Amino acid sequence: MVQIPAELPAAALPPKILARKREILAGASRVFRRQGLHATGMRDVAAELAMTAGNLYYYFENKEALLAFCQEDALAGLLRLARRCAGNERPPAQALALLLVGHVVRLNEGTPGSLAHFEVEALGEPLRGGILARRNAYELALRRLIARGVEAGAFRPEVEPRLAALALLGAVNWTVKWFAAGRGKSAREIGLAFTDQLVRGLLAPHASFRLPTPAEIDDVLRENEDAN
Amino acid sequence: MVQIPAELPAAALPPKILARKREILAGASRVFRRQGLHATGMRDVAAELAMTAGNLYYYFENKEALLAFCQEDALAGLLRLARRCAGNERPPAQALALLLVGHVVRLNEGTPGSLAHFEVEALGEPLRGGILARRNAYELALRRLIARGVEAGAFRPEVEPRLAALALLGAVNWTVKWFAAGRGKSAREIGLAFTDQLVRGLLAPHASFRLPTPAEIDDVLRENEDAN
Repeated sequence: MVQIPAELPAAALPPKILARKREILAGASRVFRRQGLHATGMRDVAAELAMTAGNLYYYFENKEALLAFCQEDALAGLLRLARRCAGNERPPAQALALLLVGHVVRLNEGTPGSLAHFEVEALGEPLRGGILARRNAYELALRRLIARGVEAGAFRPEVEPRLAALALLGAVNWTVKWFAAGRGKSAREIGLAFTDQLVRGLLAPHASFRLPTPAEIDDVLRENEDAN
Repeated sequence: MVQIPAELPAAALPPKILARKREILAGASRVFRRQGLHATGMRDVAAELAMTAGNLYYYFENKEALLAFCQEDALAGLLRLARRCAGNERPPAQALALLLVGHVVRLNEGTPGSLAHFEVEALGEPLRGGILARRNAYELALRRLIARGVEAGAFRPEVEPRLAALALLGAVNWTVKWFAAGRGKSAREIGLAFTDQLVRGLLAPHASFRLPTPAEIDDVLRENEDAN
C-alpha cells in the first residue's frame, strides 16, 4: 500500500464554515468567469451572493485569501482522490489511470481554470506555505504510485518516478489552459484519452492496463468524506 | 512530408537588428533572473547592457515589447525546429521524438523559463496577434506530425492528434516551471526521459522507435538559418 499523506489542517474547518466558504467560492467563480479574475473585487463577490461586504470579510479577509482557499480546497480534493485511488488493493497502473482521469475531471469541472492556475508565487505567507505543502504532498503521492508500479514490474525499469510524475502533472494541469466547458469533449473524455496515452508510456513490455469504468470514476470523485 | 507553416514576418528583420535585439534580450534575461520579472524596469536592462535608455527604446518601445519579442523569438526557434524535424524523410515517430527533445532543450536552455511562460493574455494588440499566430502554427505542426504517424500505422488508430498534441505540449511546456539550470539533470536528459515516456504512449502495438542521438539533436537545434 502506498502511504498517502494525511489531509492537512485547514480542511478540518467546522463543516458549517467549510460549506459556507465553498458556497462563497462558487459565487465568486461565477463572477470571475463573467468579468475576469483581475477585474473582480470583493464588492462584486458580495453582490453576487447578496451578502453584505462585512459578512463576506468575516469569511475571507481579502481576495487573496479567497483565491488561496480555492487552491487549498482543490488540492484537498486531489489529495482525497489520491488516497482513494491508491487504496483498495488496486494494481498500480490501474490506480494511476484512475487518479489521472479524476485529476482532469476535478480540475476542469470544479474550480474555474483561471483560478486553479492562480500563481501561488504571488501569495504571501502564511497562505503560500499551506498550498505548497499540499501541492508537494500530492506530487509525492503520484511519485510513490509510479515507484510502486516500477517495483511491481508493471512499469518499465528505466522510469524515474520524479520525472514521470512531472510529465504527467504537466499534461493534466495544462488542460485548464484550454479546456472549454460545454464545447467539444467533456473533461471525462479528455481525461480518459490523456490517461490512455500517458499510462501506456510507462508500461513495461507486455504489461497491460485497462481504463477505469464510469462507476469507478464516480466512486473516487464522490464528495462525501470517507469514514475512517 | 508534413507541411510546416512558413516563418511569420517579424523573424524577417534585417539580420543586424535581429542580432542586436537578441543581445538585448540576453542581457535582459540576466537581469530578470537576478531580480525577477516584475521588479525589473527598462532602466535596469539598459544599465546591464551599458546602453543609454534612449538607445534601448530605439529597439524596444517598452518592457512589454521586449517580452513579446522574447516569446516571438522562442516560437520562431520552435517553428524552425519543427520544420527540420519533419523534413529529411524521417519516420513520424522519429521526427516527433526529435521535436520533443529539441523543444525541452530550447525552452529551458534558451530564454529563462519565467519569460517563456509570460502570459500572452496580458499583451495588447498587435503584439498579441503575432505570438498567437506562431503558437497556433507550432501546435498545428505537432498535430500534423501525429496525424502522419497514425496514418502510417506507427501510432495507435485511436490517437486523436489534437488531444495528443495538447498532452505533449502540456508536459514539455510545464518543464519551465520546475527546471533548474545547473542543478540535477540537464535539459537534454529531461527531454530524452520525457520523450521516451510520451512517444511510447502513442505507439501502435509492436511499433517501435528509438531516441534521437546527440548528433541529431545538435543538428536540429543549430542556430544558423537553413539555405532554402
